[in-house]
Formats: sequence, structure tokens, C-alpha cells
Amino acid sequence: RIMRPDDANIAGNVHGGTILKMIEEAGAIISTRHCNSQAGEPCVAALARVERTDFLSPMCIGEVANVSAEITYTSRHSVEVQVNVMSENILTGAKKVTNKATLWYVPLSLKNVNKVVEVPPIQYARQEQEDEGKKRYEEQKLDRLETKQRNGDVILPVINPEPHTVGYSQSSLIHLVGPSDCTLLGFVHGGVTMKLMDEVAGIVAARHCKTNIVTASVDAINFHEKIKKGCVITVSGRMTFTSNKSMEIEVFVDADPFVDEPRERYRAVSAFFTYVSLSKEGKPLPVPQLLTETEDEKRRFEEGKGRYLQTKAKRQAQMQQAAQ
Amino acid sequence: RIMRPDDANIAGNVHGGTILKMIEEAGAIISTRHCNSQAGEPCVAALARVERTDFLSPMCIGEVANVSAEITYTSRHSVEVQVNVMSENILTGAKKVTNKATLWYVPLSLKNVNKVVEVPPIQYARQEQEDEGKKRYEEQKLDRLETKQRNGDVILPVINPEPHTVGYSQSSLIHLVGPSDCTLLGFVHGGVTMKLMDEVAGIVAARHCKTNIVTASVDAINFHEKIKKGCVITVSGRMTFTSNKSMEIEVFVDADPFVDEPRERYRAVSAFFTYVSLSKEGKPLPVPQLLTETEDEKRRFEEGKGRYLQTKAKRQAQMQQAAQ
Amino acid sequence: RIMRPDDANIAGNVHGGTILKMIEEAGAIISTRHCNSQAGEPCVAALARVERTDFLSPMCIGEVANVSAEITYTSRHSVEVQVNVMSENILTGAKKVTNKATLWYVPLSLKNVNKVVEVPPIQYARQEQEDEGKKRYEEQKLDRLETKQRNGDVILPVINPEPHTVGYSQSSLIHLVGPSDCTLLGFVHGGVTMKLMDEVAGIVAARHCKTNIVTASVDAINFHEKIKKGCVITVSGRMTFTSNKSMEIEVFVDADPFVDEPRERYRAVSAFFTYVSLSKEGKPLPVPQLLTETEDEKRRFEEGKGRYLQTKAKRQAQMQQAAQ
Repeated sequence: RIMRPDDANIAGNVHGGTILKMIEEAGAIISTRHCNSQAGEPCVAALARVERTDFLSPMCIGEVANVSAEITYTSRHSVEVQVNVMSENILTGAKKVTNKATLWYVPLSLKNVNKVVEVPPIQYARQEQEDEGKKRYEEQKLDRLETKQRNGDVILPVINPEPHTVGYSQSSLIHLVGPSDCTLLGFVHGGVTMKLMDEVAGIVAARHCKTNIVTASVDAINFHEKIKKGCVITVSGRMTFTSNKSMEIEVFVDADPFVDEPRERYRAVSAFFTYVSLSKEGKPLPVPQLLTETEDEKRRFEEGKGRYLQTKAKRQAQMQQAAQ
Repeated sequence: RIMRPDDANIAGNVHGGTILKMIEEAGAIISTRHCNSQAGEPCVAALARVERTDFLSPMCIGEVANVSAEITYTSRHSVEVQVNVMSENILTGAKKVTNKATLWYVPLSLKNVNKVVEVPPIQYARQEQEDEGKKRYEEQKLDRLETKQRNGDVILPVINPEPHTVGYSQSSLIHLVGPSDCTLLGFVHGGVTMKLMDEVAGIVAARHCKTNIVTASVDAINFHEKIKKGCVITVSGRMTFTSNKSMEIEVFVDADPFVDEPRERYRAVSAFFTYVSLSKEGKPLPVPQLLTETEDEKRRFEEGKGRYLQTKAKRQAQMQQAAQ
Repeated sequence: RIMRPDDANIAGNVHGGTILKMIEEAGAIISTRHCNSQAGEPCVAALARVERTDFLSPMCIGEVANVSAEITYTSRHSVEVQVNVMSENILTGAKKVTNKATLWYVPLSLKNVNKVVEVPPIQYARQEQEDEGKKRYEEQKLDRLETKQRNGDVILPVINPEPHTVGYSQSSLIHLVGPSDCTLLGFVHGGVTMKLMDEVAGIVAARHCKTNIVTASVDAINFHEKIKKGCVITVSGRMTFTSNKSMEIEVFVDADPFVDEPRERYRAVSAFFTYVSLSKEGKPLPVPQLLTETEDEKRRFEEGKGRYLQTKAKRQAQMQQAAQ
């Protein structure tokens, strides 16, 4: 579809959140279709996890986004989908890969939302493909368990913060979940949640560096808990780490099922977003260093640095491999 | 209502699809109101057909669209509505007719969506009006039968197409039908479908000629089948014909009721859109000729030429009549 | 236009904010048209103030909103517009007055946004009408000066609040101002701001009483400062007063012009919203009493009580007048 002014920031760059939402919609369609392809219980695929994704080149207003999706692995109860997004300038014909994403879906029964139905197996061209898929499946399973632990954390407000401290840029928004945000089962689309997360992370980044910012990458996101229609969700973001030219922002999503439900507020999702600051010519700008004050902030900064160095090392290894 | 940036292309011209959506909403309101005006079964008017409509002058961001609708004929089971759209520049006060459209609606029972209820007759000022309406009614009935046959056709992807061939510009998008797209009966508003069709047709046209394009006219559109909430719809477009200054694009809408339904994918709507290419000053530009390769493409080109010449002849006849 | 699921809460009642947005759009159109009706500088009408408005009966999904607007007074630099909203059930034909609102607009030059242009005078049928309009004009001018003083106040966050205290329900959201939120001059439509204010106030009310809530009335709203495209706005709400069956919520809008602007965050709007809690049958429910803790909260509660009793007395006086 054509990118519209509302999909983009004032510099004309399409929000990462808009792209994540399109990716998720494509993934939900292909996996729901697959899971209903055999006689059996009708079901709807729910997003369980998005693997780390890099935004390779910015998309602009007026360009056409081409989204293609393919199922690459199925376990008994989950589907792995690979989605590719290309931006096409229909005036010049130029095409660029915007990003590639890997998503995991779980099919939930249309009649009983708490029941996970079985996934029809796919055929692999080679045994190798199945083995590699299985390895990815085991890895993401482990990682999901790990992030579940980290979830108690909350973002506390700060009065009169100093510039470039964590408290200075931290932000949160609330959103009342409406019908258009939801699947047939009455739960929020994963893509809607990711769009809100990107919105908050982008505001945190812009408050910190006061320039035009764009999403560079999103770390793996795990969707621990479904969010129901009518909930109020609070999306909060705080900066955790800055390198010379990038900012890492941690985002939490909490759901408040406050009407007709005896349940307490709960943590539904959390993730790390990385942003860069761009000049008017689209060149990366230096980023003011994040000032950490408390012990927790210093620890989170070091953890963020760890993730940053790990990603950098991985990318260099890939480039060396590609060069050989 | 005031036209916003999201309603328009990057040159500031409001999308034909946005206008078609407003027209359809006005038609649905007036015909639903009429069909419920007598004691009887509550019902909702569903769009069955839109007659050919020409876009007489472009509308721009910031202008106000004035939409007025009037019932011009009723048969036992259908309502003909005439809708006029005027654009008003509230700064200068200038008003222009943007387009006039004729729509046919069929009232479906609120309790049983497969039952068509009876339409209360309207009063005609003169017998002549009723006779002319009846003639239009018979004509559109015939035409609807005809297009039903043509519906088996599909659009196949082409690898590495040459510039200006059919495969070069053909495009498709998928859309998951959400609650806001639907009427009280849970079926997609005809206007929502037409907006998506115009979006795809516009992308096909822009890919072909790489300039700013606007909708010039839409051929009669027949809505053969309803599309239900939760369906995935695939909207595909391919170019069929080019004259010196216009392009004709055929658009198909296929619905995939992939959850909870034993039904196969089916063709819901098809139509022809005509686009022109505009310079920055708003003047029509020459259009590159469409290169046809297969027998089918050549046949469709000839059929498109037939429609083009017929429309041209009709318009000249009208102008001569007006001049006399 | 037809009310959609996205315009309403889960009980099917259209949000007060959606109605306020439609009212403001109608007012902006009629006053911009009037101010450009004489040769002179092209201008766009900007919302300066909305008088207190009561929501007389709820509107539901599927109903059609009929909005009509009329200019009732002009001063040298401002226009008073009266807007009426009727809900129409097109299945039964039943029509009900939803609310009536009075809005004040100021025409700003299209070339120089800081210049207020002159308003062409309207003709009055009787001298009386002009005199009454002038009285209303003087009154609102006074009131606008008053609220400007109260504007320093900020909402401080509370950790682990007790149920039914002010801190328990207070909420805030942030919103990045996009192109579709703005007028031709690049400033946020007053209606967009009011819709966000109603959204926050509704969440505060629902958090307090955990039931289905609807907007009952909105006190006069003054728009002190324009908000520019690209700003981040923070909309915060806190409960100030509860009667047996109603809740009063104070809402602040702060704008943060954080890109490309040397300016500090500023208070753009503030207002009081009143909500009632409804049972599933649409009957008013008792509201838990607000627990006030600090001196400021107690003072605000007393002020809210004053406004509540004043409104009640005014309404009784009107009913007695009507009965005579």
C-alpha cells in the first residue's frame, strides 16, 4: 500500500511502527490461513514473538510498501513466518529492502480462546531446512522463558529531571483498546501493540536528542499475555543506553482490564528499540550521552552496552563471512 | 467534511477512492432510511451496483466536500440513488461539481441477511420520470448478468517484466476486514471496497507512467457477492488499455473467508478504472503505450479500446445535444 | 455520518469526544467560510473557546449523526457559532437531540498566522439578538481571562495509590501531532484536542468506578495557545469531585515543541469534564466517593462542588421558567 502522511514523521520518514504493523498483519494472515487449511477446529493465529529485526533503509511518504510472507517452519503448536518488506518508489521504479522479520504465531481455537490447536506440518525441500528450523524453535523457546523473569520492573516518574538523564526523556501513553485494534477473538493484534511501542520509543528518543529520529532496529519481542478489547494499556519507555550514534530504549506494555474483570494490571509485553538521529540530509548525527544516576540505571546502561557490542560483533562476523 | 492530507496523493489531489467512499456512505444512509420508512421488517441497504461515473474536476486538501443524495427510482426490491459531490474552497468561496454518481441498493433484512425485503414505492412528479427510471433499471439488470460471466479470470505474477508491459505494472494488496469496514449486518461497506480498488488501480497507473496520476472515471461496478467481517480480501489490478492520454485498469476483488467457513475463495467485485497523468501544473500528459504480449492481453486491449471509443462517442453526442 | 464501532465504547455508546470533534469541524467550516466571504485577506478560523455543553442523550453505533451549524454573533475579531447535533436511527426513523454547543472562532491570516483579520458583520433580524450576542461576547471574554490564571497547575505522579483517591485514577497520554490532526495553517484542530481530552477523562472515570461510563457534560473550554504540527502533546486528567451519580475530571493539555524550536513546554488548554456511570440497561449507577488527601485536593473538591451546585441550580431555574 502507499505510504501516507500519517504514516510518517515530519521529515517524511515512515514510522518503524507502521512497518511493524504491516509485517504483523501479513504474518497473521498467512499463518491463520495455514492453520485452517486442514479439516479441524477453526482457529486464529496469535503473535507469540518477533525476532530481532533491523531497518535497513528508511521508507518515505508516497512510496509503495511491498510485503511478502512465507512459512518457514512449523512445530506442533507454532508457526514460524518470514516476512520481507521492500519499498518501491513508483515514480523512479527504484526498489530497496526495508527490512526482514521472523515471527512466531500460535493458533488459538475460535471457540475456546485458551486452547491451542495443532498446526498442520509443512513440507521441507531438504531435511536440512527442517533441522535448522527446529534449532531456531528451541532457541526462541529458551529466550522467551528468560525475558519472563525480567518483567517485574516498573518505570517511576521523576520530578524536574536534568537534561539527558533517564528521567528527562522517559514517556508513557495510555490507549483504550477499541474494536479495530482487535482480531476476531477480541484480542489486540500484535502489530497494534508494536506500533504503540514504537510511538513511545520514538518520543523518548526525540526528547533526548531534539532532532529527527528513525527506528534502526527492534530486539526480539515476546508477547507473554493477550490483551482483551476494552482494556486500557499503558505503554512506557525509558532510555537505557547510548553509543556515539544510537540510543537504546526499553519499552513496557501493561494492560489494565478495568471493566467487568476481577483481574489486576499485568505486564503484557516488553522490548528494546534502537534509534538513530538523522540530519536534514539523512546522515547519522552524534547523540548526547545518557547521564545515569542510580545504581539500576548504571546496571541497565552496562547491559545495553553488552547488547550493543554483541550485535556489532555479530554484524562484523556476518560481513567477514560475506566477504570470503 | 474537510479534506485531509491522508485523503490525497502527494500532489494534494484527493483520491478518487475517498470520494467514492463518501458517495457510497451518503447513498447507504438515504436508502436505508427510505426502506425503513414504512412499518415492516427492519433492513439495511446493501450496495448492488454503481453506474459509470466521471471525475469532472479534482478536489484538493483543505477543500470541503458537500455530498447530496436523492432517491430517483424504486423497483420492488431495489433503490436507485443519485449522489452529487461539490468541492468548495471555503477561502475563496469557489464551488465546483466534482462528480455525480448513480447507485443501486438492495434492502436486506436485519434478522435474515439472505432475505431481500420490499421497497416502499416513491412518488414521481411526472409519469415520464417513472418510465425513464424503469428503463435504467432494466438496463443495469442486463449488464449485471453479463459481467457475472467474465469473472473466472485471475492475475498471474510475472518475473522480470519489461517496462510498459502488463506484467510490469500489475499490483495487488491484501486487507483483513475489520469491524470499522462493516455495516450493521457485518458485511463490508461497498465504499470501503471501492476505496481499496482505487488504491490498487492508482498504483498500477503510477507504476506504468511514473508521474502524478488522478482518477478520471470509473466504469459501472457490480457487487456480486457480500464480503463478511474477518475475511481477507485480495485486490488485484492490471492495465488493459492505453489511449494517448488515458489508462484503463481492470481491478478484481477476491474474498477469502478463511476462518470458520467451509467456503472457497470467491470473486466479489470487478471493475474498470480510468486514470490520466498530470503535470505539475495540472495539465494532462501523454501516456506511454501499453505493450501487449499474449493473445489474452491483445484481446483485452481491443475490448478496452471499444469501451474507450464508445465513451468518447457518447460524450460527443451529449455535447452536440447540449450545443443545439 | 454513520457511527462506527471505532467511535464508541464497548457498550456501544459513541464517545463524547467523537461528537465534540464533529461539532468543531462543522464550526470551523462555517466560520472560515464566513470570514472569507468578503474581499480581504484569506484566513482560517481557529477555535478560541467552546461554551459549556450537555450531552442530552447517548448516541449509538449504526446511528446517523446530523450536524447543523449557524453563525449567531460576530464581534470585530471573533465569530460565535451555534452547532446542533441530532442522532437519527435510520431503521426506526427516531431522532433525538444529542447536544447543542456554542463555539467561538478567531480568523487568522493565511499569510501571517499571528495576525487576526477582521470579521465581516452579520445581519440580525432584531436588535435584541445583537444585544444578547454582545452580552455573551463580553461574558466569555471575562471568563477567558480568569482561567488563564489557574494555568500553572501540574499533575504530580503518585506511587501505589489507595483505591478511590485522586492518585488512583489520574492518567495521562502523549500524542505526536501528525498532518491529519492539523488545519491548513499547520495547527492542531480544536476538535482533535477535545477528542484526546475526552479520551483521558473517560479513562480516569472508568478507573475510578470500573463500570461503563459516558460523558454527561463539558464545561467551557478555552484554547489559550495554538499547538503546531510535530509537537508532542501530553494530556493529563485527574478527578476533582464526585456527587452521588457524577464525577468531575479536570484535564490539562501541555504542548512540547521539541523539534526545531527554542520554546519550552507550555499549557495549551484546560477543562472540566463530567461523567456518569451507567448500568447495562443504561440506568445511572451510584459512584464511589472520591477520597481527598491533600489540602489542594480538598480545595479542588469544594470548588467542584460549587460548580456542581451552581449548574444544578441553573438547571432548576430553567425548568421552572419552562414550566411557567
